[in-house]
Amino acid sequence: MCTQYTERGMAARNAQIRIDLSASEPAYRQVATQLRTLIVEGSLRPGDLLPPVRRLALDLAVHFNTVAEAYRMLAEEGWLDVGHGRNARVIERATPKPTAAAWEAHRRKLRQVLAEMKASGVAASRIRQEFQTLIEAMKS
Amino acid sequence: MCTQYTERGMAARNAQIRIDLSASEPAYRQVATQLRTLIVEGSLRPGDLLPPVRRLALDLAVHFNTVAEAYRMLAEEGWLDVGHGRNARVIERATPKPTAAAWEAHRRKLRQVLAEMKASGVAASRIRQEFQTLIEAMKS
Repeated sequence: MCTQYTERGMAARNAQIRIDLSASEPAYRQVATQLRTLIVEGSLRPGDLLPPVRRLALDLAVHFNTVAEAYRMLAEEGWLDVGHGRNARVIERATPKPTAAAWEAHRRKLRQVLAEMKASGVAASRIRQEFQTLIEAMKS
Repeated sequence: MCTQYTERGMAARNAQIRIDLSASEPAYRQVATQLRTLIVEGSLRPGDLLPPVRRLALDLAVHFNTVAEAYRMLAEEGWLDVGHGRNARVIERATPKPTAAAWEAHRRKLRQVLAEMKASGVAASRIRQEFQTLIEAMKS
């Protein structure tokens, strides 16, 4: 299940969401994580409209509560304005100060992802290259 | 729940496992992921003995099946030799060739972790620094 957006205001580049039903991460969190990534990378920008809940749910072949929950989660985090009967809109969000606990959790996650890449045979040079590309994309 | 090893042959540095029961990832996969990370980083080396299943389960306050399943998973991946009635031992493992699908999955995971770090307010420079430290640790 995979969908690509061409909504007004959404940059075409990489604005793609995939749901992996075999993953242990619940579908609503997969949706939220991927939308958050698109916002952080700038593929979705403040002012951009997200697709209506029902349409995105249809595109991804998931229950509409799954998408509604993802939008709620992102609204709570300050990424979206979700009005009654209106579409969800990406809003400006002040950069928070990372807590020590959050930093530690992120560090551990990054460490594990890198170890998994290495374990599956990806060369350190390729990991470095990919990291550069990804971090550059998030620069602004 | 957290445990630190001082088994014979285990490097003390970072040889620590934590189970987060609030995480969506099942406990056995958390154990497997963390042991795999320790092996990839060289904190656990070929020839090293892992703690007996029951002892590690006790230390982590999880069911012993959880640890047994993690050991089985790592044995299937070629990291461990798990004999009957004997301890699990880290073994030499040939570096596999990463498949295109595995690479794509890793790339996506890395991208999401970086986006999460950025979203929680971690500066790109600090992410870079951490990446360097982690990738260096996996060099050999």
